[in-house]
Amino acid sequence: MKIILDRRSNQPVYLQIRDRISQLIDCGSLPSGARLPSIRGLAEMAQVNKLTIVEAYGVLEADGLVEAKPGAGYFVNPPELRISALASQRLGAVPALRSQFAPIQEVIIPEHGVKTFADVYTAGLQAHQQPGMVNFASGFPQASELDELARITRRAMKSLEPWFGNSFPAGDWELRSQIAQLLLHQGLNLSPEDLMITNGSMDALSLVLQTHIQPGDWVVVESPTFHGFLSQLRQAKARVIGIPMTAEGMNLELLAQYLQSHRPKLIYTISTLHNPTGITTSLAHRQQLFALAEAYDCLILEDNAYEPLNFETTPAPIKALDRSHRVMYVCTFSKSLMPGLRLGYLVATGDQQTAFLERKLLQDFHTSTISQAIVKECLACGYYRHHLKHIRSLYQQKRDHMLNALTQYMPPEISWTVPEGGIFLWLQLPAHCDVQGICKAAAAQQVLPGAGPAFFPDQKGYPALRLSFSLPPEDIEQGIKILAKLLTN
Amino acid sequence: MKIILDRRSNQPVYLQIRDRISQLIDCGSLPSGARLPSIRGLAEMAQVNKLTIVEAYGVLEADGLVEAKPGAGYFVNPPELRISALASQRLGAVPALRSQFAPIQEVIIPEHGVKTFADVYTAGLQAHQQPGMVNFASGFPQASELDELARITRRAMKSLEPWFGNSFPAGDWELRSQIAQLLLHQGLNLSPEDLMITNGSMDALSLVLQTHIQPGDWVVVESPTFHGFLSQLRQAKARVIGIPMTAEGMNLELLAQYLQSHRPKLIYTISTLHNPTGITTSLAHRQQLFALAEAYDCLILEDNAYEPLNFETTPAPIKALDRSHRVMYVCTFSKSLMPGLRLGYLVATGDQQTAFLERKLLQDFHTSTISQAIVKECLACGYYRHHLKHIRSLYQQKRDHMLNALTQYMPPEISWTVPEGGIFLWLQLPAHCDVQGICKAAAAQQVLPGAGPAFFPDQKGYPALRLSFSLPPEDIEQGIKILAKLLTN
Repeated sequence: MKIILDRRSNQPVYLQIRDRISQLIDCGSLPSGARLPSIRGLAEMAQVNKLTIVEAYGVLEADGLVEAKPGAGYFVNPPELRISALASQRLGAVPALRSQFAPIQEVIIPEHGVKTFADVYTAGLQAHQQPGMVNFASGFPQASELDELARITRRAMKSLEPWFGNSFPAGDWELRSQIAQLLLHQGLNLSPEDLMITNGSMDALSLVLQTHIQPGDWVVVESPTFHGFLSQLRQAKARVIGIPMTAEGMNLELLAQYLQSHRPKLIYTISTLHNPTGITTSLAHRQQLFALAEAYDCLILEDNAYEPLNFETTPAPIKALDRSHRVMYVCTFSKSLMPGLRLGYLVATGDQQTAFLERKLLQDFHTSTISQAIVKECLACGYYRHHLKHIRSLYQQKRDHMLNALTQYMPPEISWTVPEGGIFLWLQLPAHCDVQGICKAAAAQQVLPGAGPAFFPDQKGYPALRLSFSLPPEDIEQGIKILAKLLTN
Repeated sequence: MKIILDRRSNQPVYLQIRDRISQLIDCGSLPSGARLPSIRGLAEMAQVNKLTIVEAYGVLEADGLVEAKPGAGYFVNPPELRISALASQRLGAVPALRSQFAPIQEVIIPEHGVKTFADVYTAGLQAHQQPGMVNFASGFPQASELDELARITRRAMKSLEPWFGNSFPAGDWELRSQIAQLLLHQGLNLSPEDLMITNGSMDALSLVLQTHIQPGDWVVVESPTFHGFLSQLRQAKARVIGIPMTAEGMNLELLAQYLQSHRPKLIYTISTLHNPTGITTSLAHRQQLFALAEAYDCLILEDNAYEPLNFETTPAPIKALDRSHRVMYVCTFSKSLMPGLRLGYLVATGDQQTAFLERKLLQDFHTSTISQAIVKECLACGYYRHHLKHIRSLYQQKRDHMLNALTQYMPPEISWTVPEGGIFLWLQLPAHCDVQGICKAAAAQQVLPGAGPAFFPDQKGYPALRLSFSLPPEDIEQGIKILAKLLTN
């Protein structure tokens, strides 16, 4: 196999490799079932870093062109699988299912801490209460059915002990067993002891920082990433390295460089339905990221708050690869059930469990017994499964609606991600765009996009918007039209 | 008035002064309505510190012998008031209503941090689940009526917005207004803005330490004090000064000394129904403590978790004296409603509010919406008032039952406090007692006292036990009998 690279091209190297292999598959040079060259072999041949090949293979895998067989390598998929993966795109049902997202790869090490998350959060809540606003900025999910929930709560109250007292800091044992069962379906084999119930995922993230991070420690984040965590890092007085996202996840080549040069204590990653881009990484990407953390003895904090909102099955979390208790996994019922419950959990294995339990105890003893009882009953009676099935299909329709609107109205220089779940996508704007100006002009027309800068470690990054598609179709249509007009001028 | 002091006596000086004035009142030298000498005047005359006089007058006030008139001084009460205050004791209905508690006054500055609170907490929960145990060690209140609570919860669910989302970090506005109303009856005039809803009082204490205390800062606590806070201080890497409790509250003379010598950042005090002694301080003591904090520019953290369980009205919290935003006041519904809800609040005024709100947001966004809705409904429908009235009278009977049993069975060298509310009292044992040995021997007979050492900054202190009277009368009777036997041997 011969791959010629244009090192001066704007197209990243890994995408050039992907395109070349894709061509070879299309023209039959790489037939169905053929084994791709080994990562090391191809890296030597093309004179690139191994991680670049991992990323290229990751895209091919995500596109359904090849399959990774653990321990054996990468194999070309039969044509019917390839067609199925790209079906919607080829049939024109959903345009641009294959993301054109290819942002500049610039590492960000902010000199000063980021601005307060409180302003963004408060503005978001206020916007939510304003009638007539098309609120693309919200990170909130679809509402649950309150009638059904009231019935569930009544049953939950009956399940409480007559003496409704304090509980152990780790949370209710039965609830933790139920969650361990849920996680088994995601490829995580855990015992209830490995789980601690927290006040949403925010509490879990906060406990991890308080337990592991000292002022001055280096922490790697994806750039862009969840802005709430950026503010938590600032509060913990950590120093931040923002490694850019590619269309396949954190840029692993740059990650390797900075692991080597800065020896960070922790990598914060959102491997599934990344916030704000919506990207889900491949198994290969997860393996490589984990191998790097092992090589540099770095902890991983995997924050998959949106994981329950997957449209399709995804690779198991990075935590599933972990035999050295290096990965902490965080998830929540805030996005899949309701935020107001404040019910999430932290998966931590090994010796550190004691430290987490003591810290939770000293923070607030334990999470609300009644919130725990309600989620327990939601899981026991099948409501959770039923509700998830419903909202996943709803969100998929809404996503398709937004993709259609974007394709129809947006000028060609704008690209976006195509998330396989969750409630938002990421719009990359041309380099000259004034994001704050556009947000202001949009707000004057009752449209609120999520301003991209908030998600970058330096509060700048490249021009971008996060758009929630958890809105009525007519709002999506109208809002995108208005944004497109502003972006065309 | 002539007061002769014996400086070599074991009896603290302030108690010698109290006894002398008490004699003068009894024999009619100080008639009803007479004004006591000014604090400064008597201090000069007796050649003692002004704070010693404040303490002596505080005991006289607590005993009902004199009354403090703000700005005017101290006046001898008419005999009927004196009799009413000491009635139960004199009439023999409740023996020893006047506490004989007079512990040694030894400041404790622990060299190493205290042992983990987690062990004590976990052992307490486990004991609670053991049938047949007389559990004097528990800090848990009486159970609420779950049926009534289920009805309240159903109504609370109906009050939620159809969209049951995140809320502002300070918590529900209506709930904060209701609590501000409650506090008005306690003498605290606040606006809802001054209140932040937290996950029980533990969360509030934790937020205060995270916001105000740097590693190495000196913090004053009462000795003994709430052991959970001692562990929080250790986690915050604060240095601790344990100022001994007198029968009237923290020893103010020693406090003044250590404020001068160590310049602490914060005084942690439980002014009403102190944990573990059950002591409530007088208005004069509060004024003096506040004046000292002002003089040395020190913050005050007033943690009155048991305040709602007062049998009688008590002086307004220290927070009520505060015009300089130096006092933070913490309370909770854990003791008055149910611990599992995790619903408490922090009162903070002035500039620091923003810092607290941001910290709460970054910790866990906000307290469970459903816990907030339940408490709101409990307050709105009158259940809370009704429930409090019920448990206060219940606890008073239980306390009297325990005081009777103590008087009947305990050997004379044992003294105890006589709390005017709450759910426990404090037993002072002779100096030679082996507390851990007694606790072990008691456990072998199915009786669990709260071991005193846990409440001291050095995990030692003087020999003592904390005894909860929130138990069935027959358990109190049987448990005290067993303890008395062990303490007599």
